[in-house]
Amino acid sequence: MRGAFITIEGTEGAGKSSAVETARGWLQAAGHRVVCTREPGGTGLGEELREVLLSHRDGGMTPAAEVLLMFAARAEHIERVIRPALDAGDWVICDRFSDASIAYQGSGRGLGVDQVQALAAWLHPDLQPDLTLWLDLPVETGLARAAERSAPDRFEREKTAFFERVRAGYQTIAERAPDRVRRIDAAQSPAEVSAAIIDALQRFAHVD
Amino acid sequence: MRGAFITIEGTEGAGKSSAVETARGWLQAAGHRVVCTREPGGTGLGEELREVLLSHRDGGMTPAAEVLLMFAARAEHIERVIRPALDAGDWVICDRFSDASIAYQGSGRGLGVDQVQALAAWLHPDLQPDLTLWLDLPVETGLARAAERSAPDRFEREKTAFFERVRAGYQTIAERAPDRVRRIDAAQSPAEVSAAIIDALQRFAHVD
Ligand SMILES: Nc1ncnc2c1ncn2[C@@H]1O[C@H](COP(=O)(O)OP(=O)(O)O)[C@@H](O)[C@H]1O
Ligand SMILES: Nc1ncnc2c1ncn2[C@@H]1O[C@H](COP(=O)(O)OP(=O)(O)O)[C@@H](O)[C@H]1O
Ligand SMILES: [Mg+2]
Ligand SMILES: [Mg+2]
Repeated sequence: MRGAFITIEGTEGAGKSSAVETARGWLQAAGHRVVCTREPGGTGLGEELREVLLSHRDGGMTPAAEVLLMFAARAEHIERVIRPALDAGDWVICDRFSDASIAYQGSGRGLGVDQVQALAAWLHPDLQPDLTLWLDLPVETGLARAAERSAPDRFEREKTAFFERVRAGYQTIAERAPDRVRRIDAAQSPAEVSAAIIDALQRFAHVD
Repeated sequence: MRGAFITIEGTEGAGKSSAVETARGWLQAAGHRVVCTREPGGTGLGEELREVLLSHRDGGMTPAAEVLLMFAARAEHIERVIRPALDAGDWVICDRFSDASIAYQGSGRGLGVDQVQALAAWLHPDLQPDLTLWLDLPVETGLARAAERSAPDRFEREKTAFFERVRAGYQTIAERAPDRVRRIDAAQSPAEVSAAIIDALQRFAHVD
């Protein structure tokens, strides 16, 4: 039986990395083989491109170049990691996927949600996450959490207004795909967030 | 007055680099300011991506990743080099542009000419070359020329059948855009090819 494809989304410091671990633990306990991966990255080429994307560069890069690089890394990731795992019956948990490009480059950078959605349709017309956990919280709360973690990368150095647009982008995505996207209140305590994630997984596994 | 955008296309060893110099010389003598550039490349990010694209990698990369990287480099190139030069009234001569992606990744790699054409329409709906010189010659002739030049890159190491598909891709492009694409018989002597290029430029400048 084909595995399920679960993506974790949200702005910086929302708790995505923590959520991957919570989901992995619950799914494994439920008897599934689980592959955890992340974007951008997840392959040799992808990690190279992650470096190019996240490192600071004089003059930055144009939004169109940025989104095309994200999708280049994603192309490799889908074909070499995600599809083979799903075909083998594994469940895949991915820290960010195309929704991140729609929210960050489409809404945050202003390329347009529909424009980036069109790239996703170009690259993977036949692959959609089965479930997306959107960890939503006030931008400032997430940035404060992320600041304690490590030196900020090229995205984390953006201003609050940028992340407000990203958050609004996620809101649009959630409204357009209410059956797939499950909003989690990520401003709660770690224990409450974990409980909400497990609740979402339980409902999903039940319906599935 | 806005400058003209001229692209030079063809398979390996067709004589593109030589053609750029011929065209530059003639256009400058005709009183134009000329910017010569190339793809993939032409910007800091573009040259970094050129390295990623042309260097040998274990397992290569998927065709979709390859074409998206090409377009990422192109996005940067258009916005930072090509458009500013054209807006300043310069003429731009570019060694390869989107037609190369259509021929190499669309036809050569099998992604489909229309699929790659759709990416070009996504990235630059409002920018087309004003004139494209397609240097066409038997694949083997070009490969023999290129072999004498330098160690083969990731594309040059492809087999003849790949370049036959690329050549057929250029043929399709030329048929679809007969007003824009001018086929040059690149199997001729260097002097004859130069004369054909200058003839094409003269006609273009006359009509323009
Ligand atoms: N619910 C929570 N409440 C408070 N802090 C949290 C919560 N979830 C995660 N954190 C902490 O916030 C920081 C960012 O979490 P992380 O999972 O790395 O977020 P992301 O991967 O979304 O950027 C980490 O230091 C993490 O321990
Ligand atoms: N018309 C021609 N006849 C013979 N050799 C040529 C001709 N045009 C170019 N060459 C040689 O063939 C090689 C490839 O030419 P080049 O301009 O680098 O091709 P490209 O840029 O299309 O790969 C060079 O060594 C060049 O001097
Ligand atoms: Mg994280
Ligand atoms: Mg050349």
